[in-house]
Amino acid sequence: MATHHFEPTCYHNVIGSQEPVLRVADGDSVVTTTLDAGGSDGRGERLALAGNPMTGPFYVEGAEPGDTLAVTIDRLTPNRDTGFTRSVVASNVVDPEFVHDLPPSERVIWAIDRVAGTVALAEPPEPLRDLVLPIAPMIGCFGVAPPGGQAISTATSGEHGGNMDYRGFGPGVTAFFPVFVPGALFHLGDGHALQGDGEIVGTGVETSFEMQFTVRVQKGRSIRWPRGENAQDIFTVGNARPLDQAVQHATTEMLRWLAEEYGLDTTAASHLLGQAVRYDLGNVFDPAYTMVCRVAKRWLVSSSRGTDHTLC
Amino acid sequence: MATHHFEPTCYHNVIGSQEPVLRVADGDSVVTTTLDAGGSDGRGERLALAGNPMTGPFYVEGAEPGDTLAVTIDRLTPNRDTGFTRSVVASNVVDPEFVHDLPPSERVIWAIDRVAGTVALAEPPEPLRDLVLPIAPMIGCFGVAPPGGQAISTATSGEHGGNMDYRGFGPGVTAFFPVFVPGALFHLGDGHALQGDGEIVGTGVETSFEMQFTVRVQKGRSIRWPRGENAQDIFTVGNARPLDQAVQHATTEMLRWLAEEYGLDTTAASHLLGQAVRYDLGNVFDPAYTMVCRVAKRWLVSSSRGTDHTLC
Amino acid sequence: MATHHFEPTCYHNVIGSQEPVLRVADGDSVVTTTLDAGGSDGRGERLALAGNPMTGPFYVEGAEPGDTLAVTIDRLTPNRDTGFTRSVVASNVVDPEFVHDLPPSERVIWAIDRVAGTVALAEPPEPLRDLVLPIAPMIGCFGVAPPGGQAISTATSGEHGGNMDYRGFGPGVTAFFPVFVPGALFHLGDGHALQGDGEIVGTGVETSFEMQFTVRVQKGRSIRWPRGENAQDIFTVGNARPLDQAVQHATTEMLRWLAEEYGLDTTAASHLLGQAVRYDLGNVFDPAYTMVCRVAKRWLVSSSRGTDHTLC
Amino acid sequence: MATHHFEPTCYHNVIGSQEPVLRVADGDSVVTTTLDAGGSDGRGERLALAGNPMTGPFYVEGAEPGDTLAVTIDRLTPNRDTGFTRSVVASNVVDPEFVHDLPPSERVIWAIDRVAGTVALAEPPEPLRDLVLPIAPMIGCFGVAPPGGQAISTATSGEHGGNMDYRGFGPGVTAFFPVFVPGALFHLGDGHALQGDGEIVGTGVETSFEMQFTVRVQKGRSIRWPRGENAQDIFTVGNARPLDQAVQHATTEMLRWLAEEYGLDTTAASHLLGQAVRYDLGNVFDPAYTMVCRVAKRWLVSSSRGTDHTLC
Repeated sequence: MATHHFEPTCYHNVIGSQEPVLRVADGDSVVTTTLDAGGSDGRGERLALAGNPMTGPFYVEGAEPGDTLAVTIDRLTPNRDTGFTRSVVASNVVDPEFVHDLPPSERVIWAIDRVAGTVALAEPPEPLRDLVLPIAPMIGCFGVAPPGGQAISTATSGEHGGNMDYRGFGPGVTAFFPVFVPGALFHLGDGHALQGDGEIVGTGVETSFEMQFTVRVQKGRSIRWPRGENAQDIFTVGNARPLDQAVQHATTEMLRWLAEEYGLDTTAASHLLGQAVRYDLGNVFDPAYTMVCRVAKRWLVSSSRGTDHTLC
Repeated sequence: MATHHFEPTCYHNVIGSQEPVLRVADGDSVVTTTLDAGGSDGRGERLALAGNPMTGPFYVEGAEPGDTLAVTIDRLTPNRDTGFTRSVVASNVVDPEFVHDLPPSERVIWAIDRVAGTVALAEPPEPLRDLVLPIAPMIGCFGVAPPGGQAISTATSGEHGGNMDYRGFGPGVTAFFPVFVPGALFHLGDGHALQGDGEIVGTGVETSFEMQFTVRVQKGRSIRWPRGENAQDIFTVGNARPLDQAVQHATTEMLRWLAEEYGLDTTAASHLLGQAVRYDLGNVFDPAYTMVCRVAKRWLVSSSRGTDHTLC
Repeated sequence: MATHHFEPTCYHNVIGSQEPVLRVADGDSVVTTTLDAGGSDGRGERLALAGNPMTGPFYVEGAEPGDTLAVTIDRLTPNRDTGFTRSVVASNVVDPEFVHDLPPSERVIWAIDRVAGTVALAEPPEPLRDLVLPIAPMIGCFGVAPPGGQAISTATSGEHGGNMDYRGFGPGVTAFFPVFVPGALFHLGDGHALQGDGEIVGTGVETSFEMQFTVRVQKGRSIRWPRGENAQDIFTVGNARPLDQAVQHATTEMLRWLAEEYGLDTTAASHLLGQAVRYDLGNVFDPAYTMVCRVAKRWLVSSSRGTDHTLC
Repeated sequence: MATHHFEPTCYHNVIGSQEPVLRVADGDSVVTTTLDAGGSDGRGERLALAGNPMTGPFYVEGAEPGDTLAVTIDRLTPNRDTGFTRSVVASNVVDPEFVHDLPPSERVIWAIDRVAGTVALAEPPEPLRDLVLPIAPMIGCFGVAPPGGQAISTATSGEHGGNMDYRGFGPGVTAFFPVFVPGALFHLGDGHALQGDGEIVGTGVETSFEMQFTVRVQKGRSIRWPRGENAQDIFTVGNARPLDQAVQHATTEMLRWLAEEYGLDTTAASHLLGQAVRYDLGNVFDPAYTMVCRVAKRWLVSSSRGTDHTLC
């Protein structure tokens, strides 16, 4: 259960089977940093190509194809006082005929007040001059090496995770990824100090982070899509276009989870989800959109767990 | 500001320009009842064809094409002790190859405890034997007559409203509909004692209701899609397939609203929505899916309102 | 087997259960006219509201819910020398970020040379000054009354037919529609002298027509989506968004047809379609898109027909 | 203008920047072989992992990012007497509720008669006992290395080409790919003796091939999506889901082509495409679907070409 302090020196804009930067054991924690989506670090220095450069990959001892990698986000701290956003909603999230009315999109600076825990536009337009929003740090892009020698752009997402931009991936959550290659090869980056659902301007408040995460190998637990768990909820993540298909992936994965680990067959799971499920929207900006299927653990209390794989 | 007590005697399974059942004035309230989605009333008697039979239409004096009809849901009370659901998630919300694994879907009875404010399966399978969920009453299907002589099935939805199955349409909300015909011709029905996001089993806990709503005519306020407002939030509703298009409709309508009534041009609105918007999922079961774009009113406090149309 | 000459005096912009304008017997032919999509007749006089005003509905004696109405397009003749198009591709058929580059769309006049059988822009831009295209007349919008009292806008399409804008609906084809109401109530209009796949400028060469069609009632033949047959092919039509769903509807309907009338179970039909099917694109402009699943009759020759319902 | 005879010894199931197997000059031809989609060669020996193993990559001297690689398919000859298909349409091409009715899908053998130029099921079910179809050889999957170190599974497609399964990629066609890396790194494989539109059973008649292709570098010609040209037509290819987005990519790419090389601005191009465009369906089976936008060269004759990049 060591805690490694790792300072990255190279970054990747694809998630694949690159040479690991560090080998860690099952249960170890890592304290490290991530660049912002544009490739800049905590001092504002540009160290990598824009487009979600990743820290890693980290090789987790004992992780084999067919296992699950559990990653708990222990802490997520912006390590500078500014972030940036794009200034206009993306053309794919408005009606096609409304695109004509969109002004040009520019890069805009936000001030991050790390003491107060807030963000605000550095130069707000008049109607937003008093707008101060609470920070809610999250990881936009993280995941494991996909199978078969693929190297997938950090602009998109899939079964391996990737650029999901889901607000729920913040401190306290444990994310689960299917392991496709020995060591899992975990990558992470693209932190946001804050982000609305859908990442509809194409960014959250993009900034660099200092963070800690802890990895665990769940031997023999086989999952197909990223999953997550926090104090209140369990959730599954579908990445695809259209959103309809992302809904299908996430819902199917939740049905599998409820069957395999909570003793709910498809009918029992349908009773519960039909009346209690929540869907959250990850990004609707990238090539693959993200939809999350979430259910409160309080409704699962009475169920017998089929296994003890799940953490927390 | 009269309060009408109206007992329906006929019901419609399309939303169109049927003969009004009652004429009410701007500001009036109506106390009435709705059948469940299967056509049964508070005594369990089948009075109409299945498929969301509507109470109404109500003619609202003074409403003209180009205006907006505001409907506040004052109260929504189940008027019997049972509701029904379908027992299995719909085949369109799971991966195509998983459909083979779905068992047959049956009609299932839920007990509604109106004193405790809870629902529970009448004959729960073992793992759900202790499942008791709080009721959260809502209107699944309501809206106004569409333009041009259309009569649209209550199985689907559109600019006129219809079968949106959004949890947010519960007591305390004010829904806004574009007026397409003189008198607006407001229909409502398909109440749910409870429903998860997406209405993924094809039903909420379907039951009959006794309810009160209040109508107001907003002269000269022109909207394109249903909108809503409650104590915390304003929201807009897009109805279409795929969900991607519903996102586009709802987001575009929110940009229009923020521009016209909150003084936020597209760039200012993008700053706010980009970091603070929420998307909620209405149904992903019907021919048209429903996505809601929602923003907290607390972030709008500092903005000057362009008009005073909005209620509450 | 009478031939009726019918001169319309009123038109509808929805397809529903309006009062029939003429009652015809099984096997009868009708010679009539249709307005262009903008509501103008052969003399250029505006007689109806824009948006695909329909001639009809025609009540076909003996047609009952559960039957199929077969409509053979015997002849389709433009009855004036001009048509119109929109000048720019629709914003929904290009990449969202390309919409900014689209110029404004205007109404443009085409000359129809009825002797030569060609169309050409009345005032072509220089690079198209020699462009002369062969006419290929077709019906953009036709269908039967939908069930349950629905009245569906002629801007869209569904199981009842409607605005499908498929090039295959020209002279010599027999179209099949499911009958939902007594008499079927057949509507038609929106003729095009020519149209590319997808109707991507939102119009074909829109003009008025003089035409003849013949109706037959197929008792007990139950279909779910429009179908068609010509000398070479049989085809099925799916109307929905996204196109993926239109593909599903059309393919499923073809599998049903091959099973019920050509003796091919799903596996045999899959062998054939997998290697020989063709998909054609109807419009990708309207609220519902149209995809056609087509198979050459030459590959069906060796199969025993299960029934003798099919014409031609 | 050398002709290389290349016998592959290794294969890749991703398209990326693997070590080139051969360096060829601009204008050179290559005679080589491809395995079938399952990894077997002309003697039926399994030499690679299933899932479209590629021959290559070929490094084309002089090709630089920003150029276009033109690949003419000179000849495409099945090199054995059998192919295989899947026996049932994929679950994603039928209505979700119809999936229950699909029988299990099995691998089925077809006989390829290379003298007669036909294919037939080795063990046809009774209703197809006389079904003999003409072969129409095509390349299912080919393309160039994507940018940024990506390695994209041959199960899918994108701007770089990949698994498009378009019938139009047969002998006589010239395919154009955007060059993203030095040498372009061209991969090819997954030949089909025959395939219907959409590849709806998940396969064409999958077999191994002996073939010849010729490469040319088009310096300074910048394209965004694969294009093609044959004796009759030019076409552009969009790869995405849903099909609606593939339509957008292909149409936008065609508008760019007509503007840059045929002197047709967006309005002139819209006039032409609106009335003369054809859309063809590549696969609707893979993660990304494929739609082709095609226009006959006869309608382009009168236009002045802006450049002389295009071959044929």
